[in-house]
Order: sequence, then C-alpha cells, then structure tokens
Amino acid sequence: MGAEPLLTEDFLMGEPIRVLLLGTGQMGSGIARLLLERPDLVLVGAFARRRERAGMDLGQAIGLERETGLSIGNDLPALIEAHRPRIAIQATCSRLADASGEILCLLNHRVSLISIAEEMAFPAAASPDLARRFRELAQQMGVALLGTGVNPGFVLDLLPIFLSGACAHVRSITARRVNDLAPYGPSVLRTQGVGLTPEAFEQGLRDGSVAGHFGFPQSIGMIAQALGWAIDAIEQRRDPIISKVRRSTPFVTVEPGQVAGCDHSAVAYRAGEPVITLIHPQQVRPELEGIETGDEITIEGTPPIHFSGHPEIPGGQATTALAVNMIPRVLDASPGLYSMADLPVSAAFLGVRHG
Amino acid sequence: MGAEPLLTEDFLMGEPIRVLLLGTGQMGSGIARLLLERPDLVLVGAFARRRERAGMDLGQAIGLERETGLSIGNDLPALIEAHRPRIAIQATCSRLADASGEILCLLNHRVSLISIAEEMAFPAAASPDLARRFRELAQQMGVALLGTGVNPGFVLDLLPIFLSGACAHVRSITARRVNDLAPYGPSVLRTQGVGLTPEAFEQGLRDGSVAGHFGFPQSIGMIAQALGWAIDAIEQRRDPIISKVRRSTPFVTVEPGQVAGCDHSAVAYRAGEPVITLIHPQQVRPELEGIETGDEITIEGTPPIHFSGHPEIPGGQATTALAVNMIPRVLDASPGLYSMADLPVSAAFLGVRHG
Repeated sequence: MGAEPLLTEDFLMGEPIRVLLLGTGQMGSGIARLLLERPDLVLVGAFARRRERAGMDLGQAIGLERETGLSIGNDLPALIEAHRPRIAIQATCSRLADASGEILCLLNHRVSLISIAEEMAFPAAASPDLARRFRELAQQMGVALLGTGVNPGFVLDLLPIFLSGACAHVRSITARRVNDLAPYGPSVLRTQGVGLTPEAFEQGLRDGSVAGHFGFPQSIGMIAQALGWAIDAIEQRRDPIISKVRRSTPFVTVEPGQVAGCDHSAVAYRAGEPVITLIHPQQVRPELEGIETGDEITIEGTPPIHFSGHPEIPGGQATTALAVNMIPRVLDASPGLYSMADLPVSAAFLGVRHG
Repeated sequence: MGAEPLLTEDFLMGEPIRVLLLGTGQMGSGIARLLLERPDLVLVGAFARRRERAGMDLGQAIGLERETGLSIGNDLPALIEAHRPRIAIQATCSRLADASGEILCLLNHRVSLISIAEEMAFPAAASPDLARRFRELAQQMGVALLGTGVNPGFVLDLLPIFLSGACAHVRSITARRVNDLAPYGPSVLRTQGVGLTPEAFEQGLRDGSVAGHFGFPQSIGMIAQALGWAIDAIEQRRDPIISKVRRSTPFVTVEPGQVAGCDHSAVAYRAGEPVITLIHPQQVRPELEGIETGDEITIEGTPPIHFSGHPEIPGGQATTALAVNMIPRVLDASPGLYSMADLPVSAAFLGVRHG
C-alpha cells in the first residue's frame, strides 16, 4: 500500500540551534561528537574547568583526528557573551553543590540548560532550596532547565514511571540494573571500591571514598512525584561484591577474594510499606561469574508489568544521546525546571537532512 | 537513612475533576469502574449511542452490584449542558469518521477530550483534514484533545519512541506484540477471522470483514514524526494463523485446520529502506501451540536496544488505565491536538488520598 509521506523533513531546514558545551571529559567528549555531526545543531563553544585545556582546540581535547576551530575556554561568562548559545549542556560534575555555580551563571545569561549531573535529575532530593532557586530564576529569565542521564533520569525511574501509565493500580515498583564497569576509568572504579580488600571497602564506606551509585534519592523522588506518593523513609544498602575469580580490565585487576564492585540498593517506604525498590550492583566483568547484565522493571499492580532488556542499556552512550536528544523538548518547554518525567517522552529526533 | 517526605499528598485535596464518559461497552465499563473509585475525579455523566441504554443507571449497564445515581443519556449536548464536564473520555468506536461527530460536539462545548478510538492515536494518518480541523477547533476553544490506548498509543509506538531517546543513531525499529484473543467477544474475534476456514479468511480480507489490527498507520505516523523520518510507503500483510490443534474460548471453538487469528504486520520505508517493522499476530490461545505472548522492542542503532515483556501488557486493562491516567496530562497541556508522544510520559498518578 503506497502512502503520501506522513512528514517531510523540510522542517529541519531552519537555523541550526546554537549549543554551548560545558565539560570535555569522557561524557563531554561523547556529547561533542554527537553535536558535531548534527546539521540541526551547531556547537558554538566549549568550556572546561581544567586550566590546562584553555586555548586547546576541542578536536584535540576529545581525541578527534581533526581540528574543530573551537577553542576551549575557562571563562564561562565570556564564552556565553562571545557565542550567544541558545542552550548549554553541562557535563562537568555529579553533585548539585558543584554544578550550581555554572547553572546560575547560564540562567542569569538567559541560556537554557540540560545537565547530566546526577543530582540534577531531581534536584529537590539533594536540595529543595536550590531546586526552588533554579525554578524561580529560570522562570524569571524565560529559559528551561532539565536534568537527564541514563541513571538517574531514564532506566531506574523514567522507564518504570512510563510503564506505570498502563496500570490502574500500583502496589510497588522494583527496578534492577546490572551493569559492567569494565569500560570505566579509575575515578569511577574507585567510587565503587573495585580492587579493594573487603576490609578496605568497609573503611571506604565509612570515610566516603566508596560511594556506590549516585542517584537513588533522585530516582525515588521522580517516581514518587509522578505517582503522587508521599515517601516517609529511604533505606540504602551498600555491600561489597567479592569476586570468586580473577577479573581484569585495562585499569584494574581484581584477584579472588577482592572486591569487584558495589551492590547498592535503596528501598523507599510509603505509610510504612516498601513501595519502591531500586537495585544497582555495579562491578567489573560480571560475565566471568556467569552474571548476565541487564535492566529489569517489575510493577506489582493492576495489571502487573514486567519488562527487561539484556545487556544493559550502555550508560555512557545513552547519557550522551539523551542530553542531545532532549534539546528540542527543552526548547519547546515553558520556562522552568524540569525532570524527565515532566517533559514529552525522549525520542531519537535525528535531525538529519533528507537525501 | 530517614528522609523528609519528598511530597505530601495534600495537593490531592482540591476540587475533583468533572469527567463525562462516552461509551458503556467493554472499554467504557472498565473506564467507568476506574473513575468511580478515584477521589480526585468525579464521573458526572455517561453517554451511550444505544437507544435502549437511555435512562438506565450506569451501575446496571456496567454490571455493578449497586446503582451509581448516574442515568445514561443519548443526547450528548444535553449531557454536557447538564453536567458541565471539564474533560470527556470517548470509548464509543474505533474509526475517525465515526468518532468525529462526538469529538466536534465536545470541542464546540469547550470540553477537553481523551479518545481511545484507534484512529485518534495519530489522526493525521487516517485524515489530515480532520486532524487539522480538530487541532484548530481545540485551540480556538481553549481545550486539549488526546488519542490514547494500548495499541496504537503505547506498546508498538510510544515504547519504541521512548527507548530511542537513549540512542544517538537509529537505523530501524522493530516492535512485536503477540497477544491472546481469548478474553475477547464475538465482534473482535470476527474482525480477526477467528474460527473461519482459510478460504473464508481470504474472502473476508477481500470484502473487508476480516481487518486484522487497527492502528499500524497511526503507530508508524507517531514514530516517524517523533524521529523526524519522512515515510514514503507502508506495506501491510495479513495472513491466516491456521491452527494445528483445537482451541476453545467461551465464544468460539477453532478446529485444527481452521483459522485461530490474523498475523498482521506492517513495514514502513524511508528513502527505499525498511525502517519501521510492526508485527502483531492476534489469535486465540496461542499457548496451546507453545507460543509465548509478549511485547518486544528492538532498535538497531547506537546503542542497539532490546526490551521485552512476557506476557503481553493486557490490552483492555492498559487502555482503560491510560485513558484515566492521562487526564492530568491533558488538562495541563496548552490547547491543541496531541498524540501520546507529544505529552509528558504517562504515569499511574493514583490520586488516592493518604491515610
């Protein structure tokens, strides 16, 4: 059956959207590569915190074969004034307190923002005061602000919220993400305690050097708000995953009896009942002990719903894609502060010109 | 770790939202039951097309043990004027042409609307003219209009769109839904050719009495628009599922060699390449031939994504839940015509008062 085109791709022929990138680390590099290939978006500037990056061509910083003609800057207000971005993507940090200076600067310059800082996925969880300040300033300046990322922001929160839309009643939500840390570098491995002895892992939990996953309070906040649940307590557990075998990656070798990662979980209670359970063991090379990676959502309700995907949605690729794919959604939104549950569904809006 | 409540449930204490229901058949009954138990929504009236339902108590019509005090009416304008609903849910039909009279009447009376008519999931697929007229009238009247349902509207379109948000590139999307028609009555079974001989099935395809699934052009339209793809052709196939065994339901018995259902699929092409493949075999009691029911999404892209759930999300329960759960999303939207891909993600917003 033939059909008229449902949609021409002509709407992509408008002026490209001017985007400023904050961060030239692993995530920033992935985002830069996506932005550079998109005809509907134009990367107009790049900010880095590291002094030694100032003046470096972005292509060199992110490992491209070619120069981009974009020189990295350390002075955010100067970059904004020079390049007049319509929107920025922040990939410089995880914590709200650490992210807030750049966020306030961008909002004050009337630049919309997508942040992949984990605590920005639902900022009221870490600081209701900062969340209110961001919301009010964004509204006053006429721009929109979104936190996103694979987790928090997608797998352990937005996906169960989305699936719950098909339920008349929900008693509880359980979401599990089993991933492989083998692609990650030393700083991530350190926060998960990879390669430590069990005793050093316990010491790391006490002194804060072993942290597990950043994001459970944010994911629980998103789910609770979307379902209209008042949460009265959150319990978190962090246990060492002690390897039975030798597990090697380019950055670490874990001997049998050492720690391969952190089994981190959180349970949220409503009126004394556990209603949200999030389980996220992170370790290097789980396949060496026959553990399959994947994402799995279980809703106890009417109807019950169970969905799963194997292997897990790759975290780095998904986070960079979400940050770029959400640009049109953020620019279409009214001024304000948003979580992923407040905007129309993410989509790989490809923005590639036809033919 | 204790925490302050993330959210109190006090916001549910406002005035309940006044809802009018159109349709008292199987779907309308399910929606009515959900509306009647929700403290944040109040069912103010019920419309039926069938003359013999006029004056009947809604409780009797939908098989409740009790009276509801709501008397069913056949006169839609009179019901609107008597009950002043803020929003209506339409569960009277599948086709756009059949739905449009009621829709125009509601819009003209400034009532927002959620329709579960399959062709309303993406009305431009069946009639760009009617879609434009709905959009313009909704904007003029200051109300919002949404088409929803499990399929089209959720499993074979919104779910792959949602998952594609984690992809930087998408080459193709394949979505498969294998369901069991055993819960359905004679009218659904007839449109799928259940119980026919293979020859009668082929004859039914020719004369239109066997139709297969309603909704592939709508699902393809939703996906194509969300991803920015121009679709130049859609091919559909309908094949009989010929049973090897005896399959019985309360409404039909299929003997070996007879038709157990319709294996219906659609492929959409972009620039000559197949980019969207939707597969939806519908039959009674597939488990008798060892076929597992379920929903399955495969995205070929960067990264590739595969998610599946078994058994399938139950169609009737999910459609009624989506229709009710989307009420706050529609009332929060600006005036206009929406598909599920245009609004914030569905969520089981439970609206149950605390304590």
